[in-house]
Amino acid sequence: MLGSTHGTLTTDSRRARVIACGEQRPGPVVHDQVDDLDVSGRPLYTDVPDLARFFRPESVAVIGASDAEGRPNTGITRQLLAWAERVGARVHPVHPVRPSVFGVPCVASVADLPDQVDLAVLLVADPLPVIEELAETKVKFAVAFASGFAETGTEGAEAQERLARAVRRSGLRLLGPNTNLNAFERFREDLDGPSIALITQSGHQGRPLFALQELGIRLSHWAPTGNEADLETADFISYFAEQPEVGAIACYVEGLKDGRSFLLAADRAARRKVPVVAVKVGRTEAGARTAATHTGKLTGADDVVDAAMRQYGVVRVDGLDELQDTAALLARARAPRSDGVVVYSISGGTGAHVADLAAGRGLRLPRLSRDRQAELHQWIPEYLNVANPVDNGGHPVGDRRGRKIIDAILADPEVGVLICPVTGPFPPLSDKLVRDLVDAAEETDKLVCVVWGSPVGTEQAYREVLLGSSRVATFRTVGNCLTAVRAWLDHHRFVGDYRSPFDEAPRLPSPSFRKAEALMRPGQQLSEHGAKQLLRAYGIRVPREQLVTSAAAAVRAAAQVGYPVVMKASGAQIAHKTELGLVKIGLTSASQVRDAYRELTDIARYEDVSLDGVLVCQMVEQGVEMVVGMTHDELFGPTVTAGLGGVLVEVLRDAAVRVPPFGEDQARDMLAELRGRALLDGVRGRPPADLDALVEVVLRVQRMALELGGQLAELDINPLMVLPRGQGAVALDALVVCR
Amino acid sequence: MLGSTHGTLTTDSRRARVIACGEQRPGPVVHDQVDDLDVSGRPLYTDVPDLARFFRPESVAVIGASDAEGRPNTGITRQLLAWAERVGARVHPVHPVRPSVFGVPCVASVADLPDQVDLAVLLVADPLPVIEELAETKVKFAVAFASGFAETGTEGAEAQERLARAVRRSGLRLLGPNTNLNAFERFREDLDGPSIALITQSGHQGRPLFALQELGIRLSHWAPTGNEADLETADFISYFAEQPEVGAIACYVEGLKDGRSFLLAADRAARRKVPVVAVKVGRTEAGARTAATHTGKLTGADDVVDAAMRQYGVVRVDGLDELQDTAALLARARAPRSDGVVVYSISGGTGAHVADLAAGRGLRLPRLSRDRQAELHQWIPEYLNVANPVDNGGHPVGDRRGRKIIDAILADPEVGVLICPVTGPFPPLSDKLVRDLVDAAEETDKLVCVVWGSPVGTEQAYREVLLGSSRVATFRTVGNCLTAVRAWLDHHRFVGDYRSPFDEAPRLPSPSFRKAEALMRPGQQLSEHGAKQLLRAYGIRVPREQLVTSAAAAVRAAAQVGYPVVMKASGAQIAHKTELGLVKIGLTSASQVRDAYRELTDIARYEDVSLDGVLVCQMVEQGVEMVVGMTHDELFGPTVTAGLGGVLVEVLRDAAVRVPPFGEDQARDMLAELRGRALLDGVRGRPPADLDALVEVVLRVQRMALELGGQLAELDINPLMVLPRGQGAVALDALVVCR
Repeated sequence: MLGSTHGTLTTDSRRARVIACGEQRPGPVVHDQVDDLDVSGRPLYTDVPDLARFFRPESVAVIGASDAEGRPNTGITRQLLAWAERVGARVHPVHPVRPSVFGVPCVASVADLPDQVDLAVLLVADPLPVIEELAETKVKFAVAFASGFAETGTEGAEAQERLARAVRRSGLRLLGPNTNLNAFERFREDLDGPSIALITQSGHQGRPLFALQELGIRLSHWAPTGNEADLETADFISYFAEQPEVGAIACYVEGLKDGRSFLLAADRAARRKVPVVAVKVGRTEAGARTAATHTGKLTGADDVVDAAMRQYGVVRVDGLDELQDTAALLARARAPRSDGVVVYSISGGTGAHVADLAAGRGLRLPRLSRDRQAELHQWIPEYLNVANPVDNGGHPVGDRRGRKIIDAILADPEVGVLICPVTGPFPPLSDKLVRDLVDAAEETDKLVCVVWGSPVGTEQAYREVLLGSSRVATFRTVGNCLTAVRAWLDHHRFVGDYRSPFDEAPRLPSPSFRKAEALMRPGQQLSEHGAKQLLRAYGIRVPREQLVTSAAAAVRAAAQVGYPVVMKASGAQIAHKTELGLVKIGLTSASQVRDAYRELTDIARYEDVSLDGVLVCQMVEQGVEMVVGMTHDELFGPTVTAGLGGVLVEVLRDAAVRVPPFGEDQARDMLAELRGRALLDGVRGRPPADLDALVEVVLRVQRMALELGGQLAELDINPLMVLPRGQGAVALDALVVCR
Repeated sequence: MLGSTHGTLTTDSRRARVIACGEQRPGPVVHDQVDDLDVSGRPLYTDVPDLARFFRPESVAVIGASDAEGRPNTGITRQLLAWAERVGARVHPVHPVRPSVFGVPCVASVADLPDQVDLAVLLVADPLPVIEELAETKVKFAVAFASGFAETGTEGAEAQERLARAVRRSGLRLLGPNTNLNAFERFREDLDGPSIALITQSGHQGRPLFALQELGIRLSHWAPTGNEADLETADFISYFAEQPEVGAIACYVEGLKDGRSFLLAADRAARRKVPVVAVKVGRTEAGARTAATHTGKLTGADDVVDAAMRQYGVVRVDGLDELQDTAALLARARAPRSDGVVVYSISGGTGAHVADLAAGRGLRLPRLSRDRQAELHQWIPEYLNVANPVDNGGHPVGDRRGRKIIDAILADPEVGVLICPVTGPFPPLSDKLVRDLVDAAEETDKLVCVVWGSPVGTEQAYREVLLGSSRVATFRTVGNCLTAVRAWLDHHRFVGDYRSPFDEAPRLPSPSFRKAEALMRPGQQLSEHGAKQLLRAYGIRVPREQLVTSAAAAVRAAAQVGYPVVMKASGAQIAHKTELGLVKIGLTSASQVRDAYRELTDIARYEDVSLDGVLVCQMVEQGVEMVVGMTHDELFGPTVTAGLGGVLVEVLRDAAVRVPPFGEDQARDMLAELRGRALLDGVRGRPPADLDALVEVVLRVQRMALELGGQLAELDINPLMVLPRGQGAVALDALVVCR
């Protein structure tokens, strides 16, 4: 059921394609104001740059064109001229003295260019003066090849910033510097159906994707973004998401220029239901460092990048082979009819193995009904397993039974995907098998995948029959097939439920904000009491407590708070209270309170800790200790973290993160990611915790991050005691550091 | 530095090959008695079956031979005759009435076979009577094709057991039933160097491995073991481990016939330093179930299988593609000179990406020295990163610099592996690059890996230059390259340190055993007090405690044990003591002890729990709570588990398992596998825990598992309190269920 040979797909827009699948085409992204900002001052909307003339310029100027033997620019000029001839574009070499280059007449300077030039290709070592000259013309786009900018260090970064400023003043849009002509490669035009649009920050890394065309997979665009002084990955994602022929966007990303613009672009793609598949370098410190030296971009903390991608449904993969296989499937396969996967093979061993791996990836392998099994046993011997995996034992493949079995499986309403691993070729039977699969795929709207397991790959059944079909999704490894199928099912589930968080992001400060502002102490850490007042301002519950400065006041406070109480030293700069002995718990009498007061102030004196008093707090037990906090990511700004508290969070780092803005659904997903989430469900006979209250705290901390993020260096509620269901959550301690 | 074209390798034995690498060839496995048993009654040694005549029979009988058109046996007979002609073996078709089959004279019955027949191929539906007839002959081996045995259910399993008994009586060795002729395929004989020997429980699953020969990788044996009524995977591992031409053993395993024989075979391979790479189906419940219906074998608990494989250095992979790539590298690459990996490419992007993935797999990417970088910068422009990854920027590849760079990297003593990802072909430069790599690989003893990233795979540089080299290890994906390199480094590290646990496994019961036996209560759960006495018998420390039956005795006991004390109800069948309120902690006075005694006995009466008394125990705090236990696996028998205690182990299932016998090294590795292992190192200012004492407890529990395993259904020390370093570990509670 790949889309590319479907009648309506070859010429019509995505509208036609999507409607054919019974889906609603999403409406355009509408906003009242294009300069919408959220309460943190970050944009809620960006325009889609109109890059049509960039990808299909009718007239191109080449500054630095050459036909002198041995110069690198000569090869590039030749490549451009060949491309121009192919697509019928005019080329204007710019050269101060030469009358022509490769026989094409030159103009003497940028100022002499005709009016209607769409694109200028800059083959000069220093593009800055040319950009300034181009500012005076009507040229819309420029591509700068020169390297030696941000990828080389501080000086290069400064030169790049000067270039970026000149571009902003000029009104034109720049691709590069440190890029190439990949956008003007020779794309195959005989392939139809939904295409892959490719974005790479390193040209070489796009090569295998480009080569997919040799396997019959359509590629429509390639944006080699280089250093992204102006146009960035996000611009191309936005643009591609709006192009009717684009079925999926494949990205190779080393670092992002700006976190927010990436999120807005991913949001646009999610709204338009266009899948984005990305390799993002930076899983390890070493990789992040190397990537930074390569393109001079921010890599961001990897767990934050990972979360941000998940929030917007971007499929992250690790290898270029996975990028190819996943993008190709997502581009070409239409919406699933069911998430049920059947494994069909000629060998029980193959079936067992692939079913095992599929279940391990979280795919659902429904057991076929008794009736369906009986139907299959018309053609498959009774002793073979046909419940799923379906093992045909080999022989039925050779005759008319082969096709009937495939059709019967595909006719089952429980089945959305048929995966047939052809572990090894066994001609002529395997040729007949793949021919039947290709034919059956023509007549179904379900997904048919074949894994051609031979490592050789020169077999005719593979190269001609399978690669010749635009309906069967062909893979070379079971692993990549399962990764792609999982991503495809996840994508459709995700976009089906998707609600943009930007639509609901707060634009104006909440009433809490004014109260909170008065509590901030720029550059300082708040005392525990101050931090709790800040939480209270945002409606986060804290224990009943009083700050006292005498033993007698402590005893009075304890009576009001209610025994048993906890007493803690309170001061602006106290860290590690527990380790220093500055916390006393479970005090049940006035005399214990009096003793505790004396002891705490003694320790503080001894440790030279300055106190603003002693907190007498209600003692809260019998909950699940969590940690909820806010920190800053260099790429995405404020982020919200939630994790299991106590020793758990420290030893296991069992925490999840989200980038604001996000809604309640993401807050819940975040908690579902925790390895120790079962603690919240209640273990060892404990009652389940108040998950709703925990979610509410996460959302209130997000609100603080958005409204106060600029003034908050760090916020950490630790522990947040989540009480049994219906009883809420209480912040027992908090660390707040103001900027 | 793949071994296959190395002069000493083509004709000499592994001894020569290994000595060429400066390694000691391990001696033969010597045992005093071949019927050695450990204290649990399990074998410490198995013989290697002599399968030479099985794989190279000089004379073959075919029972059920046919040349009648359309019969399945006809094709098999034809295949056998072709094979026999190729290798010069004699074939004796057995047929009661036909004078000849395909022109080869028949004998009328098994009894009429000549004396020197090595192998009988049984193409009959019921092999049982033939096996009984063969028992009267000198035939050494039989292969049974028939299916319908254990893979079909209970009846089939019984038929298989009858067959197995007949085989045991007969003195011959049987392959199958439910197998085929894969062992007699047409192996390429023009390939030399160390080979892969293949074992598959499903013939079809071996096809891609067999096809590796078309990529220039030598395969010397294929054992399609089928249902393993007699000969099993372990027999072939043992045999292959002794064959000089075998460089690696590749297995596809659905289920194991016997856990112990698998371990002994893997032990032999580890002693012989022959790598074993295995796909083992059963990662998921679904997969395990399907595999069981396919071959009718035990799959075992997957975490136990996984641990058992790791204990003996068996490399477990998931996909057949990983099996191919990993086995090929392990077979052909000699011992590493260093574990340092350098990534070398023509693109900074490629380098950053691959370095990121490599670091993510735990590979070590040393930063090249300043001197080495200066050397590389003779040929590579100054602004490119050559620290590792080495980015040559492309151009140097085209001239003499290309080879010089490769040689300089390989000359670095920090470097053991060079990985060059050729992301996309860019002829003619990429052809020159791979040619240089192939040439350089000829002259180094270090490992050179190339990842040919093009998805097309028909390029001449790939098919002729790379696949034509037996020195360069060629991969199609970065992921598989890194998996294989990691496995190769791990394998050599593992066999370098390997000491067989079978050499040190206890043969005779310890003095503890007699004491322990008296404490066992067959079919019952021991009381807490009884369980602790059992632990004490094995030298595992328990708290000072006394079992009392009156309040007054409790007070006396508390004084002797020392305050504060813990009091617990004790009885043979008490579970969930804490939940029932049958534990009182932190009692500091005689009056508290008296009250606690009354309360515990009241609750016990109310809950209808029968007590043998109340335990008054020393209170032990300030340690790390662990769980150490023993349970039974259907495949491997008693296993030992260690994990973090308390809620942690329950919620996160953070536990590791080992199959006895194992030494102290494995006990330490086991603890290192725990996600929360940092708790043992001390967190939040706590002192590090007494790891040595914990290891000692694990080893003592192993001893109990070996000596008492047959009488113990379950043993669980929970919690084991591991005190600060130097202070030991104390079992605070234990559950013991006798069989």
